[in-house]
Amino acid sequence: MSEFEESGIGEECGVFGCVAAGEWPTQLEVAQVLTLGLVALQHRGQESAGIVTSNGVNPPTYNTLKGMGLVNNAFPPEDLLKLRYGNLGIGHTRYSTTGISELQNCQPFVVDTLHGKIAVAHNGELVNAAALRKKVMRHGVGLSTSSDSELITQLLALTPPMEELDAPDWVARIKNLMHETPTSYSLLVMYTDVIYAIRDPYGNRPLSIGRLVPISKLHTAGAGEGDTEGWVVSSESCSFQSIGAKYYREVMPGEIVQISKHGVKSLSIVPRPEGDLPAFCIFEYVYFARPDSIFEGQMVYTVRQRCGRQLAIEAPTEADVVSTVPESATPAALGYAEQSGLPYVEVLCKNRYVGRTFIQPNTRLRQLGVAKKFGALTDNFAGKRVVLVDDSIVRGNTIAPIIKLLKEAGATEVHIRVASPPIRFPCYMGINIPTKEELIANRPEFKDIAGYIGASSVQYLSVEGLVSAVQGGIPSLQKDERISTNTKASRRVGHCTACLTGKYPVELEW
Amino acid sequence: MSEFEESGIGEECGVFGCVAAGEWPTQLEVAQVLTLGLVALQHRGQESAGIVTSNGVNPPTYNTLKGMGLVNNAFPPEDLLKLRYGNLGIGHTRYSTTGISELQNCQPFVVDTLHGKIAVAHNGELVNAAALRKKVMRHGVGLSTSSDSELITQLLALTPPMEELDAPDWVARIKNLMHETPTSYSLLVMYTDVIYAIRDPYGNRPLSIGRLVPISKLHTAGAGEGDTEGWVVSSESCSFQSIGAKYYREVMPGEIVQISKHGVKSLSIVPRPEGDLPAFCIFEYVYFARPDSIFEGQMVYTVRQRCGRQLAIEAPTEADVVSTVPESATPAALGYAEQSGLPYVEVLCKNRYVGRTFIQPNTRLRQLGVAKKFGALTDNFAGKRVVLVDDSIVRGNTIAPIIKLLKEAGATEVHIRVASPPIRFPCYMGINIPTKEELIANRPEFKDIAGYIGASSVQYLSVEGLVSAVQGGIPSLQKDERISTNTKASRRVGHCTACLTGKYPVELEW
Amino acid sequence: MSEFEESGIGEECGVFGCVAAGEWPTQLEVAQVLTLGLVALQHRGQESAGIVTSNGVNPPTYNTLKGMGLVNNAFPPEDLLKLRYGNLGIGHTRYSTTGISELQNCQPFVVDTLHGKIAVAHNGELVNAAALRKKVMRHGVGLSTSSDSELITQLLALTPPMEELDAPDWVARIKNLMHETPTSYSLLVMYTDVIYAIRDPYGNRPLSIGRLVPISKLHTAGAGEGDTEGWVVSSESCSFQSIGAKYYREVMPGEIVQISKHGVKSLSIVPRPEGDLPAFCIFEYVYFARPDSIFEGQMVYTVRQRCGRQLAIEAPTEADVVSTVPESATPAALGYAEQSGLPYVEVLCKNRYVGRTFIQPNTRLRQLGVAKKFGALTDNFAGKRVVLVDDSIVRGNTIAPIIKLLKEAGATEVHIRVASPPIRFPCYMGINIPTKEELIANRPEFKDIAGYIGASSVQYLSVEGLVSAVQGGIPSLQKDERISTNTKASRRVGHCTACLTGKYPVELEW
Amino acid sequence: MSEFEESGIGEECGVFGCVAAGEWPTQLEVAQVLTLGLVALQHRGQESAGIVTSNGVNPPTYNTLKGMGLVNNAFPPEDLLKLRYGNLGIGHTRYSTTGISELQNCQPFVVDTLHGKIAVAHNGELVNAAALRKKVMRHGVGLSTSSDSELITQLLALTPPMEELDAPDWVARIKNLMHETPTSYSLLVMYTDVIYAIRDPYGNRPLSIGRLVPISKLHTAGAGEGDTEGWVVSSESCSFQSIGAKYYREVMPGEIVQISKHGVKSLSIVPRPEGDLPAFCIFEYVYFARPDSIFEGQMVYTVRQRCGRQLAIEAPTEADVVSTVPESATPAALGYAEQSGLPYVEVLCKNRYVGRTFIQPNTRLRQLGVAKKFGALTDNFAGKRVVLVDDSIVRGNTIAPIIKLLKEAGATEVHIRVASPPIRFPCYMGINIPTKEELIANRPEFKDIAGYIGASSVQYLSVEGLVSAVQGGIPSLQKDERISTNTKASRRVGHCTACLTGKYPVELEW
Repeated sequence: MSEFEESGIGEECGVFGCVAAGEWPTQLEVAQVLTLGLVALQHRGQESAGIVTSNGVNPPTYNTLKGMGLVNNAFPPEDLLKLRYGNLGIGHTRYSTTGISELQNCQPFVVDTLHGKIAVAHNGELVNAAALRKKVMRHGVGLSTSSDSELITQLLALTPPMEELDAPDWVARIKNLMHETPTSYSLLVMYTDVIYAIRDPYGNRPLSIGRLVPISKLHTAGAGEGDTEGWVVSSESCSFQSIGAKYYREVMPGEIVQISKHGVKSLSIVPRPEGDLPAFCIFEYVYFARPDSIFEGQMVYTVRQRCGRQLAIEAPTEADVVSTVPESATPAALGYAEQSGLPYVEVLCKNRYVGRTFIQPNTRLRQLGVAKKFGALTDNFAGKRVVLVDDSIVRGNTIAPIIKLLKEAGATEVHIRVASPPIRFPCYMGINIPTKEELIANRPEFKDIAGYIGASSVQYLSVEGLVSAVQGGIPSLQKDERISTNTKASRRVGHCTACLTGKYPVELEW
Repeated sequence: MSEFEESGIGEECGVFGCVAAGEWPTQLEVAQVLTLGLVALQHRGQESAGIVTSNGVNPPTYNTLKGMGLVNNAFPPEDLLKLRYGNLGIGHTRYSTTGISELQNCQPFVVDTLHGKIAVAHNGELVNAAALRKKVMRHGVGLSTSSDSELITQLLALTPPMEELDAPDWVARIKNLMHETPTSYSLLVMYTDVIYAIRDPYGNRPLSIGRLVPISKLHTAGAGEGDTEGWVVSSESCSFQSIGAKYYREVMPGEIVQISKHGVKSLSIVPRPEGDLPAFCIFEYVYFARPDSIFEGQMVYTVRQRCGRQLAIEAPTEADVVSTVPESATPAALGYAEQSGLPYVEVLCKNRYVGRTFIQPNTRLRQLGVAKKFGALTDNFAGKRVVLVDDSIVRGNTIAPIIKLLKEAGATEVHIRVASPPIRFPCYMGINIPTKEELIANRPEFKDIAGYIGASSVQYLSVEGLVSAVQGGIPSLQKDERISTNTKASRRVGHCTACLTGKYPVELEW
Repeated sequence: MSEFEESGIGEECGVFGCVAAGEWPTQLEVAQVLTLGLVALQHRGQESAGIVTSNGVNPPTYNTLKGMGLVNNAFPPEDLLKLRYGNLGIGHTRYSTTGISELQNCQPFVVDTLHGKIAVAHNGELVNAAALRKKVMRHGVGLSTSSDSELITQLLALTPPMEELDAPDWVARIKNLMHETPTSYSLLVMYTDVIYAIRDPYGNRPLSIGRLVPISKLHTAGAGEGDTEGWVVSSESCSFQSIGAKYYREVMPGEIVQISKHGVKSLSIVPRPEGDLPAFCIFEYVYFARPDSIFEGQMVYTVRQRCGRQLAIEAPTEADVVSTVPESATPAALGYAEQSGLPYVEVLCKNRYVGRTFIQPNTRLRQLGVAKKFGALTDNFAGKRVVLVDDSIVRGNTIAPIIKLLKEAGATEVHIRVASPPIRFPCYMGINIPTKEELIANRPEFKDIAGYIGASSVQYLSVEGLVSAVQGGIPSLQKDERISTNTKASRRVGHCTACLTGKYPVELEW
Repeated sequence: MSEFEESGIGEECGVFGCVAAGEWPTQLEVAQVLTLGLVALQHRGQESAGIVTSNGVNPPTYNTLKGMGLVNNAFPPEDLLKLRYGNLGIGHTRYSTTGISELQNCQPFVVDTLHGKIAVAHNGELVNAAALRKKVMRHGVGLSTSSDSELITQLLALTPPMEELDAPDWVARIKNLMHETPTSYSLLVMYTDVIYAIRDPYGNRPLSIGRLVPISKLHTAGAGEGDTEGWVVSSESCSFQSIGAKYYREVMPGEIVQISKHGVKSLSIVPRPEGDLPAFCIFEYVYFARPDSIFEGQMVYTVRQRCGRQLAIEAPTEADVVSTVPESATPAALGYAEQSGLPYVEVLCKNRYVGRTFIQPNTRLRQLGVAKKFGALTDNFAGKRVVLVDDSIVRGNTIAPIIKLLKEAGATEVHIRVASPPIRFPCYMGINIPTKEELIANRPEFKDIAGYIGASSVQYLSVEGLVSAVQGGIPSLQKDERISTNTKASRRVGHCTACLTGKYPVELEW
């Protein structure tokens, strides 16, 4: 378990799109592909979910389904049936607070413009949102939500002014939007019969493309282009397997990709300012993404394992066993064990049914804290010195009761090894991090963190260690035929470590 | 029961507003006044409900609560508690189709503009909505719903262009809106600490003002201005009693009234084109309004009773008893009985629990039809000739099985007398009427309506009879001190009978 | 509106049964007939509902469906479908408190006995329940509810001891039960392929039999026995029309009727002690029953009208108009008006949407009280003296605010005339009446009831007046071929007036 | 993941009880302790849950709360509050089918007897239930459910006949019950102020006792008897940590333990027939129990790890890596890896959000099968020979698509090693196992199981291997002061392996 989970830190969203290939009306159940795709992105947001499908004709009929909570609850089967005639569609799963009145923040947003309806799904946070809101309102537009995504739809509708006679040039509008705001966004824009998949010039949020093939050919190397049943685009590639798709490639930083029934076409790359490196969020590797997702050519699980190995090198420990706080830190713990030569054991058993149990305040049961979620596997560590690997520490109030539990159940020493550096700065690009003052790394008690949480010792992975674990495994793009030569030549590697270092990829305006 | 009820014809909405008088923060429970006010307007719309309260300071905090279904279901008590600190607020109850995804159409709409947030609640339908939508979109605004009310908010935000430095002149914006669209709307616009209550120049939809007084002085003539606890504004005055308010006056056609903690102030009257009469919807009297509401100085119940008397004059009957299809036609039936001298009896007993009972298709139970809702009070009519008064006939499929039921239970004759003329034309001003082709009055079978529905005879009230029953009781405004001299002088009487005559108050554009 | 409604006085239950006639498997949708039948009995209980169907073969398969709340909510359509293969069945709707845990009290009860399963539905309350519970428990039986109905099932299973070899003699067991407990019960017992319909020897609770005919022949006098599609048995005959059945006859006091696919057969009449009269609950006429139900050959509505006439004779009034507190007192008010010659008008308009609105305590809105439910139809009574007829007064806290409302809206006098005598004693036979101390008729303030509730005067119908209004219209049984000669000869008339007079039909034991 | 999970095999129930120590009314939140205790037993049943608390005075007030689904859903907080005044109570969580009508099967059962109310919670299945039902019904008792637990309550009420004058001897009744039925049951019986905790003479189902201590002293060795805040009794000791209790001891086979505010007292041991060994269900170790529970002095996790080691000895494999189907087989996989010297890696990532997603039949998505639940961690096994350890194989339809997934993602070989023997016989003692014909081990395709499921090879743990892994770690009772000398002397070890061997612990009667 990550402290992230306990501390309410979270990703803002996941986006997912699908276009059926070949003749329309399609036999592909687009609405169901979208639903399952979103279920696979559920870890990126559990507040609400929405999908919009289009029949793809001009003018199109869009069908929308939105609901609060998990995807499986948000879309009642009978409502899902109504969407089955879609030939393409986009979906969104949202992270955040609860409340029925928040349904209005649920994405995708559909707006009617002079040239017809567009639907937009967005993952990220615009760094200059405040200035853009003011600009839009000055033009006389009323904004009905605080959502960046509504802002994006109005910006797309607004600039350049809509031409009544000619066909709309949506790509020009999208480029214009990308010049108005540098980061962060991975964006899906559906218009009639195409989906535009866009990643901001810094590539801060992930976005990958997959190809639906016949289930029978799913795991065969030889499923050629002719077998394509449709195209999907997703915040994470982990969703591809759930729907029977093969990984195709990532959308590149700054790239606008058009996905239609005819296939995938790279339309443009909007460049960063001279000298700026890409800034893919390094915490996608550390915590947010599912371990079976692939970013920049490498599996997230493997990166986490490398972090564990690097941590063993940077922070070796005199101990008897290595273990994990289940489940997100397990790859790092296995990496630490492997590198250190210490045996890996399980020390905690998670009760997956613990949930929203109602406990009255001021009772003895409150005092039990997070330990209620875990059973101690005493025989595996009693009388031993334990290295406990976690993926992050934010406020410290999750790990402390676990250490107490282990020590009192017989561990002679509990050494905490954290497979990421301390978070010291807020994120303005889509991650909900406590304010600077709340972060434990900035608080006085952090001076003696081991004492504060009751550990025998605490050590973190260094920023350099993390960066090298991440960047060390990124393969060259040279051999990937699906990426244009131009793009390959310009491939540079860079990651956003702002929350660790305070170095933001763009100047902050507010 | 009216055929309206069965045939899905319905009013689009009810609006309600409240401003606490005197010092703020107020002791008045504004959110609860709004809720009870909306409950009293529930007959005008059961699809969804919403309220927005403001704390009235600058910049204001608005709290919004929206939900699907009846007011009592839409607002969970725990959510209602959150709104209790409001000093003023507006609410809305909406008629229409179901579906959680429709929550986005739920009013009031709140939009953020360059000069702060406004909230808007609207009853009516803009006759030139299509042209206005195009105009707004041409300006580069995206519209996220098909609702006229969103359109109104964007029109208010848009024109004239927002001035960044000076304070916004909302009254100028409202006047501008009223010049852009002639009808139909009764509108509440809340901005920070005031509510603007607006009725379109034709007065097509109703809007009345009430005064909250101490409960102890509620029914005392002597509750003076000093006792005012707050002001309310409502689609119908029937809501005033539920919340402890006294009727104050109607908003006049074209009038913009400002309601603040300092009281009620008439700001302006936007005139109709030279020569045009007011066009208050005559079906508010016939069917939509609650019988205890007051329009144009007369009680709706009394108008309905007059319609019954007029009907007895126009269509006398050789019969033994007069009765009603409960419950909406009862005043007309009592009027008919009184005028005709025939005794009034009850012939049907309504089962108030019949509802959404699930009955499989193709079964004997389906054949029972609407009669399942009624029990025959046989002793009251067996062996007798019955005059059955209904308020309207739309498709005829409600009244037919009732006639069958009465005849087979022993009525020797069943004469249908309808207290309104046949509906022959669609409404474009807020009433959901079937298309021209669907209306029974336009269908061949209507030629022999009595034969079609199995009645001994069928007769309708004439248009002239209806108009005289409505207009005959409207008192002069001369003695009302609350209405300005100017307005009183210009008082002219007129009603919209478009659905009966095809004469629309304004030229239709589309 | 009756004070009964406000004061929580209520009937305990309704029972309903149906047996398909002719060949099985039947085409009749027995489960739906049961459901609609219960909907028509919904006024007798809204807490929970249940139905049990049997396929009628030996051993039978019983399917049970139970739920909390109204029938339409309690039986989800998809669950109802599961019951569609039944050839016969019984149902129950229950009055009382809420709470999911109370589902265990929901009837019908099904118990497995040595000779197979029986299902039991019960309306009433056993006067000697406490002694019977002790007797059953002394035999070593554990009782899992406080329900008399469970007690009945165990008594049927228990006595006389089950004979393992021979077939069970259920009729003997039922007779035995009837000797164990004199009243009150109307009972349906389903066993494999028959329903036994039983009324206690005093006939305290109602029970009527109906005949399902083809819908096309429903209202034809000539639908002969050959057209019978099934038989139904119900607490009230008002349910027959809802399902397409014709009234057949009542079950007589003490009678055991067997209903099978072969028809209706009277098996036995268990007599009362020598000299005892029947004791049908007189409040079924006054308040509980639906006005279109028939008891003892007369329509309930007509009896209520007679009560109104009798009241006008006993308590004439100097006044201008007569009116009603809608809706249950309307027939009495019309009777009063007719007898007195005063005009009948409506003075109150009921808001049918007022319900469980959440109102915070200690607010001005609380003070509005029950008047929130009603709108005053001012024009009909302003400046006039009003006779307001109600069907009963229990605590007085309902009528008082209505009187206040009318007087303050302009009535010069409000005279209350109550179409039943005051309730002074508790009921031990199935009606939930407040304890003796709580009844207003027994409280000091009742001495000056008019002053207490703010009326100009208050007068009640006398006990003798009520009894004569009820008994005056009961027709002779002589001409009814469906009742045996024996029974007809012994027809005696009597009603339970215990709550008015304290004279209970049987000696109370506890 | 176990095939058990997929195949619907399951435990019937969990039971939990709590008695507050010291003075009453207690400060201990008994209802919340019960709730959290049941949450920790949730893996034993998810159909419904119930708790009953007693205030402990004579006669007692019992409060009952029951609901369908998971504990957290079944008990709404507001209802839970009503139970807070309990001084003792018992609870139950039930495994099985769904449906609101099944609420009547929800335990604990409360019955009123001549001597007052008892509440009963039961885990297990009576092998001679059919004969006992007949016996009870022959006595004249009607049974309203098919539940063994209702049968137990009636048996307790029935025999020996209730004595009216003297106090009831519940212990005699319990002993009588235990002589009527040999197995299987772990039973809690609450009567006024005590809980009797009973395990059948064969000890087929588990039952453990814990001691509630101050949270501050929870993990301190020195928390003496004086610190006891209450006593708990549970199907599994894993629940103790969740509520702040220390493990005390197991209830012994055949033992009746009385738990009161004065402490824990062993009342009696009902012996097995001469020569019979205990028969604790061996599948509690293999699959049902939570790994942190303790049975017979050993931790379940450790037993599973020993099974893995034994499997590596019995079925060694030429391979590169060892892995698990998460999560239940992980201890066995780690044991296998350790013993074999092969590295342990993770090959599958579970999507914890996959649930009741609605997928239309006959679509491509259906074909994806169970693999939708898992993401392949390709880098960890591509190009390698994998040993995949699972805990059981029932029908084979879970493991087959996983093997396919791994092979197609690059595993060169997939060897299945199952850490338990094949199930060949049905269970009549509380486990819901498919019929003999449905079990894969008895079907023809099982002859070539590896071919059938697509594995490179398949091998099972032997029965002897399982028994030795289980029995090898059971410690002696000699040093446990809490168990009586008598019991310790008679300690014999034995387990029920009926589903593997067909050797049932008692003769089956039906």
